[in-house]
Amino acid sequence: MRSKKLNLLVGTDVVDKSNIEKLAKLSAVHFLSDIPEDRLAGILPEIDVLLIFSWPKQLTPDNLQKMTRLKFVQSILAGVNHIPFAALNRGVTVSSNAGAYSDEVAEYAWALLLAAAKRVVQLDLSLKEEKWTLRRTLDEGTEVTILENKVLGILGFGGIGSSVAKMAVGFAMRAYAYSRRPKRVKGVRTLSGEKGLELLLRKSDAVVLALPLTNQTTKLINRERLSQMKSSAILVNIARGELVDEKALYEHLVANPRFRYATDVWWYKESRESLKTDYPFLSLPNFIGTPHVSGPSGSATGRPARLAVENTTRFLKGLKPMNVVDPKEYLTSYPY
Amino acid sequence: MRSKKLNLLVGTDVVDKSNIEKLAKLSAVHFLSDIPEDRLAGILPEIDVLLIFSWPKQLTPDNLQKMTRLKFVQSILAGVNHIPFAALNRGVTVSSNAGAYSDEVAEYAWALLLAAAKRVVQLDLSLKEEKWTLRRTLDEGTEVTILENKVLGILGFGGIGSSVAKMAVGFAMRAYAYSRRPKRVKGVRTLSGEKGLELLLRKSDAVVLALPLTNQTTKLINRERLSQMKSSAILVNIARGELVDEKALYEHLVANPRFRYATDVWWYKESRESLKTDYPFLSLPNFIGTPHVSGPSGSATGRPARLAVENTTRFLKGLKPMNVVDPKEYLTSYPY
Repeated sequence: MRSKKLNLLVGTDVVDKSNIEKLAKLSAVHFLSDIPEDRLAGILPEIDVLLIFSWPKQLTPDNLQKMTRLKFVQSILAGVNHIPFAALNRGVTVSSNAGAYSDEVAEYAWALLLAAAKRVVQLDLSLKEEKWTLRRTLDEGTEVTILENKVLGILGFGGIGSSVAKMAVGFAMRAYAYSRRPKRVKGVRTLSGEKGLELLLRKSDAVVLALPLTNQTTKLINRERLSQMKSSAILVNIARGELVDEKALYEHLVANPRFRYATDVWWYKESRESLKTDYPFLSLPNFIGTPHVSGPSGSATGRPARLAVENTTRFLKGLKPMNVVDPKEYLTSYPY
Repeated sequence: MRSKKLNLLVGTDVVDKSNIEKLAKLSAVHFLSDIPEDRLAGILPEIDVLLIFSWPKQLTPDNLQKMTRLKFVQSILAGVNHIPFAALNRGVTVSSNAGAYSDEVAEYAWALLLAAAKRVVQLDLSLKEEKWTLRRTLDEGTEVTILENKVLGILGFGGIGSSVAKMAVGFAMRAYAYSRRPKRVKGVRTLSGEKGLELLLRKSDAVVLALPLTNQTTKLINRERLSQMKSSAILVNIARGELVDEKALYEHLVANPRFRYATDVWWYKESRESLKTDYPFLSLPNFIGTPHVSGPSGSATGRPARLAVENTTRFLKGLKPMNVVDPKEYLTSYPY
């Protein structure tokens, strides 16, 4: 290893060659997948910068302890709740990739919102099972929902939330957005604080969760907050499953058949997102689930990796990186 | 019956009391459902104006022949292909209800488009059948489609088509619209003629059918036109099933697994739209079907009936009604 350049460890294979070359001009690049296990202990203490997609399995608590020179971690995933903050030295700067997937995840949020509003999944299945005739009309309270002039609540008004709001304009929905810090955005009613959150939940015909998972937002949507929502509301989750209390949601869906939940993200079982649930959600007609696919095709476009590389080069050049997160806000459990 | 006022026959129960009262100020209102069968023959020759949702069963060819004074027919359904033009006297004016359902049907088109693009139905079903794990990625060529910067082709640029284009802005899609008469619309590339249609089909990543069913548009999407489309394109139909050649579509879907068809409308069997198909479409993963529900909740809002009543009052007042259709363009078969 050369002493002048910082040592960068790449713990993912989603970065293409041209972006690796950019990094190689500013650092000595090492690939985690190329390092034999018996050589890890020798290399890890020399690593200054870590670029990852999700947290690599090889970086166990023991191995992470050896990374005494680590200064900067860049996530290619937008969220950073996969990073074991409690096990990182206090001086380590961590950057999320906020905004990298915003537009495609916002498109996905709209796909789930409209599928729930128009009952596309439920109706397609009823045709497959031959449980429908063209002359049958939808039962009262389970009609197709018209979105025009209705209120769309957006929890979390970062990249994804802003993009969701932008798409609401063409549907003539009235957008309410809840964010930690009050923001002014044309055409959007922005709210903050506990009262603001309650107002948004009470007014909204549909709510999209676009918040990061932090110790402030875990189980934010609990029994009480569900009860504040309209009984015919649609709740869409493209952020993290753990934002919603699993038991409270199941009981709410059973008790309120007009309420709909459509999600691409799932609860954590043994510290990892899992399709296994404690309750039989998929048997409910007012539940739509997809297996966390809003992002993957985004990695194929290369944009998230490119943005993460750009931010890493900022750090390597001695500039202040963007999207630095506050470790205190994050869950501290080790992901594996 | 009074001689001064025109006789209006209402052949539907979707018009509410306040709208019936508006009509009663300008005409003598009769309700088809109130007339005993043995009295129909006496009343029908006196009817000047007919207001219907879809074509009423009671108005058989025999009974229609008795309506010698009929001057005006107003449909509450947007499309008028349910009307037996060949059996109407030549002097009868027929008005569609074009635009009455535009926004909700456009919302529905987007629900189908996004469900197909994001594979929501297919993925939800694969979870229900436990055929998926979170670590599985989508097979190549069947990824989630990102719509941003892609081309959306819209066939038929009336009320629904314009509304579909308006919703495309927030998704940053490039809209191409095909219409009979060239139109200039900001942000939309409008095309007409056979060459224009072919260009649109070749360029589009997704195509929405929003055309009326006429003798010009029946089976417009045939084998040749399907072959002009991208093999990974998404075709959405919220207009009429008969716009698409059933056999050609089935063979195209089987031969092109990346191509997707999402429809709310179905082919005619024995002159009526039917969920029965000649081919097992619903068993294909690249087919999404719903039972013509984009409109019904719209009738619950009352807007389509209100607009149809407004147009009927125009006729009753001696004004020129809007949305007058050209009978020569329509299929002439009797619906029942």
